[in-house]
Amino acid sequence: MALVSKDTQVFSHQTRVYVEDTDAGGIVFYANYLKYMERARTEFLRSLGYDKPALFDGLQFVVRRVELVYQKPAVLDDVLDISAHLIKLSKASFDMQQNISRDGDLLVDAKVKIACISNDAKRPQAMPADIHETLKNYVC
Amino acid sequence: MALVSKDTQVFSHQTRVYVEDTDAGGIVFYANYLKYMERARTEFLRSLGYDKPALFDGLQFVVRRVELVYQKPAVLDDVLDISAHLIKLSKASFDMQQNISRDGDLLVDAKVKIACISNDAKRPQAMPADIHETLKNYVC
Amino acid sequence: MALVSKDTQVFSHQTRVYVEDTDAGGIVFYANYLKYMERARTEFLRSLGYDKPALFDGLQFVVRRVELVYQKPAVLDDVLDISAHLIKLSKASFDMQQNISRDGDLLVDAKVKIACISNDAKRPQAMPADIHETLKNYVC
Amino acid sequence: MALVSKDTQVFSHQTRVYVEDTDAGGIVFYANYLKYMERARTEFLRSLGYDKPALFDGLQFVVRRVELVYQKPAVLDDVLDISAHLIKLSKASFDMQQNISRDGDLLVDAKVKIACISNDAKRPQAMPADIHETLKNYVC
Repeated sequence: MALVSKDTQVFSHQTRVYVEDTDAGGIVFYANYLKYMERARTEFLRSLGYDKPALFDGLQFVVRRVELVYQKPAVLDDVLDISAHLIKLSKASFDMQQNISRDGDLLVDAKVKIACISNDAKRPQAMPADIHETLKNYVC
Repeated sequence: MALVSKDTQVFSHQTRVYVEDTDAGGIVFYANYLKYMERARTEFLRSLGYDKPALFDGLQFVVRRVELVYQKPAVLDDVLDISAHLIKLSKASFDMQQNISRDGDLLVDAKVKIACISNDAKRPQAMPADIHETLKNYVC
Repeated sequence: MALVSKDTQVFSHQTRVYVEDTDAGGIVFYANYLKYMERARTEFLRSLGYDKPALFDGLQFVVRRVELVYQKPAVLDDVLDISAHLIKLSKASFDMQQNISRDGDLLVDAKVKIACISNDAKRPQAMPADIHETLKNYVC
Repeated sequence: MALVSKDTQVFSHQTRVYVEDTDAGGIVFYANYLKYMERARTEFLRSLGYDKPALFDGLQFVVRRVELVYQKPAVLDDVLDISAHLIKLSKASFDMQQNISRDGDLLVDAKVKIACISNDAKRPQAMPADIHETLKNYVC
């Protein structure tokens, strides 16, 4: 389901397009690509040893910013590759490049900023030191 | 958006079908009718004075059982009426009949059992007495 | 991702619970189990050689009836097994038993009736003979 | 449900947050704001006399680009205002500014580019002349 190319350190997750994802235009509904991207980010963090990464102790990762360019539509039954490539890391946030492609053909090109916030006050917080240390090895 | 016919005490909520609800078959995806039904149940409870009814103090209402018959499909742009009709009430659960129709034409016919459980142990619990008292007036 | 036990001929599909599937109650939203069930039915038909089975030439399979009993909730990060077990077959419809379980523990127990209809008139139609012949081998 | 302020010509659509929209973090799942934005764009076009605007004859409008900044999260039961403000118009596309706010408090700030394409070839096409003429009156 997922692989990390050690050379490029670009993590990739595979997912199938089901009926639930499509719309009456016969293509994947534009919001649903963000679901695929969240799945890939979750699997990237799981591959580093972090389960339930979106909801850890007293803190949570939330999406702060998303930029998507829709190049070509995905359709029912497609098998999609969603990358999760760490391009920037700071104490309380990180940026990812996420491309969605089908057989090497780029469909969606996205940048996502993730911030760490406290569960209670919903204010920016430094992420746990061990996650920060681990992520450092994957920035490129 | 909602009305209660005092004679029949059948609550009804209206909703529009948007692109998000449809699928590549050109109709509303079968799971999405359950979203409409939850909206109608929420608005029914709100009409009785209960906000955020699904998540009240220490307890929550969860769906225990659903039976749906899909008679005819809804399509993009339809305005749907979703009823929420209380047909049975006990200490820790209640049953609703929920019909989804378009211009008086029945599309989906459903029965839903809702149970009250504790947030922690996820075990059946008697619902708060005031909710039980209020609901009693709406069983028919 | 999927296996058919030849003895029991019960097809099973595995899926992960992601953030998109959960709700503010901390559990999988009740409508989303129907998405998992559709994925399993699609993979069952794919395993028999039928791609895009929901949308074949001039005809489509639609869900006619669903009965679900929610026994226990699934939560974030769960890996779920969804069965697709053909229990009845007629010319224009078939019935499936679909159980959703986690590590052998039953969470949701469902029966689903699927009907074949024409794309245009949305009327019941006999399903293609080859699909009917193939499905016959899997009823039990 | 919707109003156009004639002075500013900023269309606004109201929607409620239901359980279906939330996630285990207790907030609206980040992809679901795109559903709200599509509802507001659809109602904007409907207010101009165009029904089913996403799927008109031989052509369709598709989203080409989205930029979102998530300022603050929406939660269960919130009533949200989603604006649909036309900021740029060309022959085959238009740009909208869409803000999501709660009681005047900005939660999400988004820019969306919509392109007109042919249903068959999925290639850029000039939009119908009457839609272009109508939209011209709303650019600001």
